[in-house]
Amino acid sequence: MISQGPETNPRLFTFVGGTTGLWTVTDVKAVIGESLAVTERLDIINGSVSVPPDGSKWILRGATSNERYATRSEKDLMVAKQTALGRPKATCAALIPIRKNPQWWSLTQDERRTIFEDRSRHVQIGLRYLPAVARRLHHCRDLEESEPFDFVTLFDYAPSDSAAFEEMVAELRASEEWKFVEREVDIRMNRDWD
Amino acid sequence: MISQGPETNPRLFTFVGGTTGLWTVTDVKAVIGESLAVTERLDIINGSVSVPPDGSKWILRGATSNERYATRSEKDLMVAKQTALGRPKATCAALIPIRKNPQWWSLTQDERRTIFEDRSRHVQIGLRYLPAVARRLHHCRDLEESEPFDFVTLFDYAPSDSAAFEEMVAELRASEEWKFVEREVDIRMNRDWD
Repeated sequence: MISQGPETNPRLFTFVGGTTGLWTVTDVKAVIGESLAVTERLDIINGSVSVPPDGSKWILRGATSNERYATRSEKDLMVAKQTALGRPKATCAALIPIRKNPQWWSLTQDERRTIFEDRSRHVQIGLRYLPAVARRLHHCRDLEESEPFDFVTLFDYAPSDSAAFEEMVAELRASEEWKFVEREVDIRMNRDWD
Repeated sequence: MISQGPETNPRLFTFVGGTTGLWTVTDVKAVIGESLAVTERLDIINGSVSVPPDGSKWILRGATSNERYATRSEKDLMVAKQTALGRPKATCAALIPIRKNPQWWSLTQDERRTIFEDRSRHVQIGLRYLPAVARRLHHCRDLEESEPFDFVTLFDYAPSDSAAFEEMVAELRASEEWKFVEREVDIRMNRDWD
């Protein structure tokens, strides 16, 4: 072999539900379809995990990627308002893995964009909660191993923004886009900053 | 672990440049940037390869996925005209891996679509060569291991359509979209049907 050993995609993140990690899991709820096992903690690793840690009940993986729907004007608005994950005050987090149905994936780009934004206002809803809610989207659908979800989104926010966060997820779940979601789990976490 | 062992994404394909496989490599040409090693044969496997076969010089992987740019009307035209890979008369093939530059990936969806179709006519060019040229696009950018290319496209065609195929790739390479291509290799193959 001429090639060197494979290197992990630097945009890959691994989410381990188990007994280690900085986040203490407070709730695991099936929103649509089958749930995930309740675990004590969530560990978030930038990279891959070759051997599942002792006590882990599930592992999700996903890679951050290029924008799929946002236009330049929408992106510019987001970039101007958004903050990165990990602010000291952001001691609440949610990990929300989602799988969309085959009908969604058989739509063309223009059809998906129309549902995503023109009819569901996905970007506009999200924008209203910036900078309170920080967000990182990970794509799982095109990894080489079959994943149980298409996307995993990680959010963090301050306890004082909890009500706003609930409002945001409720708005998105009421949208036309969510009719194409066939599985969704909502995992909530807290973090102590020692 | 509750989860079963990982299953390969059914949309994943592995391309092995080595000494086995149905396709005899006739030419390996660097179009932009670094080439790949010349090999005797190309093997195309639906799935992953855990151990590189003896004599293999490189392995590329990619997953077929949802449409990223085509509109419904464009897709309908393609579906009406296109044929699947593997026609008995299609004894010529090309494997063309491509990597686009970071500037491309930092564009938003609307900006990429404008370059891809409004200014470069990628779909319209491809449509003119259907059904003579069959094509399957594989995405590599979001796999969990860093891949040397973002896309791998496999084409096959009859020897009598070779000139048309050359015309098609020349048209695409002359387009504005190709200014964002930072690496491209063009591997040509023949196949004997015994």
